[in-house]
Amino acid sequence: MPHIALPEGLPGITGPFAYRPETAKPMRELAEILLRGPNTLTSGEREMIASYVSSRNGCVFCHASHRAAAAHHLDGDYDLVDSVRRNLETAPVSAKLKALLRIAGKVQESGRCVTPEDIADARAEGATDLEIHDTVLIAAAFSMYNRYVDGLATVTPIDPALYDVMGRRMAKEGYVRASN
Amino acid sequence: MPHIALPEGLPGITGPFAYRPETAKPMRELAEILLRGPNTLTSGEREMIASYVSSRNGCVFCHASHRAAAAHHLDGDYDLVDSVRRNLETAPVSAKLKALLRIAGKVQESGRCVTPEDIADARAEGATDLEIHDTVLIAAAFSMYNRYVDGLATVTPIDPALYDVMGRRMAKEGYVRASN
Repeated sequence: MPHIALPEGLPGITGPFAYRPETAKPMRELAEILLRGPNTLTSGEREMIASYVSSRNGCVFCHASHRAAAAHHLDGDYDLVDSVRRNLETAPVSAKLKALLRIAGKVQESGRCVTPEDIADARAEGATDLEIHDTVLIAAAFSMYNRYVDGLATVTPIDPALYDVMGRRMAKEGYVRASN
Repeated sequence: MPHIALPEGLPGITGPFAYRPETAKPMRELAEILLRGPNTLTSGEREMIASYVSSRNGCVFCHASHRAAAAHHLDGDYDLVDSVRRNLETAPVSAKLKALLRIAGKVQESGRCVTPEDIADARAEGATDLEIHDTVLIAAAFSMYNRYVDGLATVTPIDPALYDVMGRRMAKEGYVRASN
């Protein structure tokens, strides 16, 4: 049960978003730009970063929903999305994405954990400054969304089919509509 | 030196804000609503929560600047702002603010650390649902801003006088102007 009286029947972050639309608006806009805006990183790659950070923060709702969104950007390939969480080093993703996910993992712990070597490694694999910037900010932003969702003890559905539907909508329609 | 090539001469978060105005816009708007929007918590109280969380995250720039902003909302009383960081239990602030700061401290660690007892304690001291919501979101949002500032190794001035000027501007003019 949520810690405060949120509108009923709304899963995860959609509960507090409906409760406080003033703060929901910029939070939705930030997600839209970071995950679906014009970018040299694909939306699939960016949703994988969001899902990876949410998993490391133990946020079941954000992990499951962004895992599904990532999969829907990647022809339904849930196994690819899960591979980076199982073992980042052996995952069948590009060396650049691995280096960016390593930076995201550091940011999830603390921004102060990121070293010049982490940045150099990402650059050596072809990452641009903007890609590094956006990776840091996606990891930072999900350190917010995750704490918001869990700090209010929002409703966490357990049915995987529900997350699949939600992830498809997030991937296809995005984050600035009123109803997701 | 910042990890990526940010515009020069801009301290802390103002560097990446200038570098990526698309993401700066919703991030500024969120800070404005949370810290200066209409609220039953004063801006001084809300800036104290922001400063407290930033201190716990070890983010020197965000702690120093929001400490100064809080002080400027509180007749320049830096000592009051610092009291909650030195010892929350003996600090000369209301029992309600102490209970909210305890929740903020839990959120800084992880949203999952917040217990029904933490919420009940805040309610017993008169905290409303909206005050609890905003406390959780301020703590979550600063877990983002702090990671953004440190994850990019932004410029951290050391002159306290500079933070005093910055804090005054944050308190008086807010977060949605282009130049802060």
